[in-house]
Amino acid sequence: METARQATSPHGERQGHPADAHRVLDRCRALVRPALSEAVGRLHPWIGEMAAYSFGWCEVGGAPVAAPGGKGVRQALAVLGAEVAGAPARAGVAAAVAVELVHTFSLLHDDIMDGDADRRRRPAVWKAYGTGPAVLAGDALFALAVETLAAQPGGAEAVRTLSAALGDLVRGQADDLLFTERPWTGPERVRPDEYRAVAEHKTGALLGCAAALGAALGGAAPETVAALDRVGRHLGIAFQIVDDVLGIWGDPRVTGKPVHGDLRERKKTFPVLVALDSPVGGRLVALLEAGDAPGAAAELIEQAGGRAAAMAEARRHIAVVDTALAGVPLGAGAAAELRALLGFLVRRDI
Amino acid sequence: METARQATSPHGERQGHPADAHRVLDRCRALVRPALSEAVGRLHPWIGEMAAYSFGWCEVGGAPVAAPGGKGVRQALAVLGAEVAGAPARAGVAAAVAVELVHTFSLLHDDIMDGDADRRRRPAVWKAYGTGPAVLAGDALFALAVETLAAQPGGAEAVRTLSAALGDLVRGQADDLLFTERPWTGPERVRPDEYRAVAEHKTGALLGCAAALGAALGGAAPETVAALDRVGRHLGIAFQIVDDVLGIWGDPRVTGKPVHGDLRERKKTFPVLVALDSPVGGRLVALLEAGDAPGAAAELIEQAGGRAAAMAEARRHIAVVDTALAGVPLGAGAAAELRALLGFLVRRDI
Repeated sequence: METARQATSPHGERQGHPADAHRVLDRCRALVRPALSEAVGRLHPWIGEMAAYSFGWCEVGGAPVAAPGGKGVRQALAVLGAEVAGAPARAGVAAAVAVELVHTFSLLHDDIMDGDADRRRRPAVWKAYGTGPAVLAGDALFALAVETLAAQPGGAEAVRTLSAALGDLVRGQADDLLFTERPWTGPERVRPDEYRAVAEHKTGALLGCAAALGAALGGAAPETVAALDRVGRHLGIAFQIVDDVLGIWGDPRVTGKPVHGDLRERKKTFPVLVALDSPVGGRLVALLEAGDAPGAAAELIEQAGGRAAAMAEARRHIAVVDTALAGVPLGAGAAAELRALLGFLVRRDI
Repeated sequence: METARQATSPHGERQGHPADAHRVLDRCRALVRPALSEAVGRLHPWIGEMAAYSFGWCEVGGAPVAAPGGKGVRQALAVLGAEVAGAPARAGVAAAVAVELVHTFSLLHDDIMDGDADRRRRPAVWKAYGTGPAVLAGDALFALAVETLAAQPGGAEAVRTLSAALGDLVRGQADDLLFTERPWTGPERVRPDEYRAVAEHKTGALLGCAAALGAALGGAAPETVAALDRVGRHLGIAFQIVDDVLGIWGDPRVTGKPVHGDLRERKKTFPVLVALDSPVGGRLVALLEAGDAPGAAAELIEQAGGRAAAMAEARRHIAVVDTALAGVPLGAGAAAELRALLGFLVRRDI
């Protein structure tokens, strides 16, 4: 989940309440940081350095730095999950630490699998430290996440929630790796419903887990926990689809990504899959395969309704998020902050 | 933990009761297999195939085969752990599944880190399926192990035990990777006590965890659980040191490894570390660096007392195992089987 691509909508307007969302993220990050630092400090020093590098806390070699880390969306969801359940923010901290560790573990390993050499404008851990050490550091963060949750009261249930999300993460990554080998068209093609499942597994499962774990540790009723899991899962799908739209039509000055990058990389994104299933599918395949006219491909996808279908799909998932949030009792102040955060992540008026 | 190297002692005699040990291993493997197959069957099919390949159940592509898998030492320790606590064997099955999954996860990832292209006379998973998929399959097995244990009654405590062992595994692997970069001599050299810590973490922790988890799920008293953890940890150190001796002086027809292989690979094994700390250390460094006379290096290590010191060290850890076993009440039949298994893994009369 990148940050720059979220700063504006596909049409370039400013977000609804970016200041509110940033305030929430900053508050949660500050709250969680001591516990996260303490957990990372218990790692083997070499592994701990790789972890700190990933979080943007140090350079290779260990010199302190304040490089851009992640926004900390997952830790914020965990803290807000506890708060909407009426518990103090600190009740969600262990969940926040666990999900940030798992998220970082998955970035470390996914970058190896996907061959992505950069992460947040710095060399990825496998590029900076080597593939073997990056595999090991990921494993260590994974183990630390499990250890952190298992030490909580009610830890078994929390670990079950986390391991289910981990299972989904792995399943989503497996399908995503296999997508690259599948044909553009024909019976073996990737279908939009498979795309939705991968987006839910790769992105939604951990977002849902974060909010659900925070709520569960905050003593929420099972319906509230389930509703927040659902919120995170549909948020993840909506986020991913909006990200796909930005990856084709977004302003590179805002997204920080090369124009038409996803088309050049021949990614099987939602707008592309929709257009491939339309009468212009054959022409689109030829353009994508040739790879030299991504602008023409983007135009063809838009003509075929790929962009509109993607935005409609994203809106559908945002509606599910709204319905899920409306269906359970939530502490008012925290719920407003949660809505500000969700609105920041995926524009509510797209 | 290789199998062939264990078939005879450093001096080539037959083991004490190999038939008994094989009977125990076979019984436990047959008992655990359905639950292990069921767990693996819940994985994504592609990941499940990599797991089945690792267990020796199929070839690349999924065709069934009966290739040599591991001996199943960890699953046997888990089952025997339950039985020595007076519980039926089935009480240890979830622990057995979890530790076999964790062991396989660690082999998949360690082979990537160590660049080992072969495992049990077949291509390692990363060679057969690619590095990325092997990373992912390891992650999936890790998550499945946690999920399996968390679903048990008393799961939080079991998950804490497992995650502590996982932390040790990672720590041991980190130190081991760093050993290769450290000098033979001088203040930065690897000391025998660091070697012991790595052997305990890399090999002993999961063996101890296996027996302790089985006992805990079998309802054993905390002293018994702690004693079995200690048994596994010292067994692991003893095993590793005997393995080092066999790696230098073992008969390659029995060990299945090239003669003097560990010396050619310049491994910092226990006998080597002892000899490096002796007056002939400088000559040994020259021989190891030149790399063309491993026979002379082996002779020098033996003259310097490296072999004798290693065997004495192994005996010391076996004595700790015996003392730990004698200090707690254990069901007689299962305790005899446990002793047969331990005796098979590390000769009691070395």
